[in-house]
Amino acid sequence: MADRGKFDRERFHMELIHDMYSFRMLLFSFEPGQELPVQSHEADSEVAILVLEGQGEFTGGDQGIPAREGSLLICKVSEPHGVRARTRMRVLVTIAPPI
Amino acid sequence: MADRGKFDRERFHMELIHDMYSFRMLLFSFEPGQELPVQSHEADSEVAILVLEGQGEFTGGDQGIPAREGSLLICKVSEPHGVRARTRMRVLVTIAPPI
Repeated sequence: MADRGKFDRERFHMELIHDMYSFRMLLFSFEPGQELPVQSHEADSEVAILVLEGQGEFTGGDQGIPAREGSLLICKVSEPHGVRARTRMRVLVTIAPPI
Repeated sequence: MADRGKFDRERFHMELIHDMYSFRMLLFSFEPGQELPVQSHEADSEVAILVLEGQGEFTGGDQGIPAREGSLLICKVSEPHGVRARTRMRVLVTIAPPI
């Protein structure tokens, strides 16, 4: 993952890393200020959001949760979750089972 | 994850990060030379092995695959897989569905 990902000033970049019946993995690359909007999905899956690089915050709760390299957030996909980048940021998202 | 994990000269250290019906996450911490022995399990799950820190190799194939920070190996749990550390190494393992 060290050299994966691509930054785009227009919009965050998303790359599918793995997609199987057991789980899906997505790599998000953000320029400063870009964000994955807060979202929730009616499904009985869980999502793990791991920061590989950069700083920002996990959004979706009453207030943001600081996120930096190594930060890991795990929640149900039915709970509001999102990411906002403060610096360039790369985030690995795992969804199991995939939705 | 940046400050999680614990190194033990006697044996690799394993910490349960998350355990639900959807997936299990384990953090392995290795001293140089320690290894997670090659293993395979009769189950229809997949495993993702992400190197958070350090260098070593993924074992289980005919020859080792170099592994360093950011390296990601995904395989079925029924395929032989293991990790050998060359430096201190921390590895995040995701198994979905958990077995």
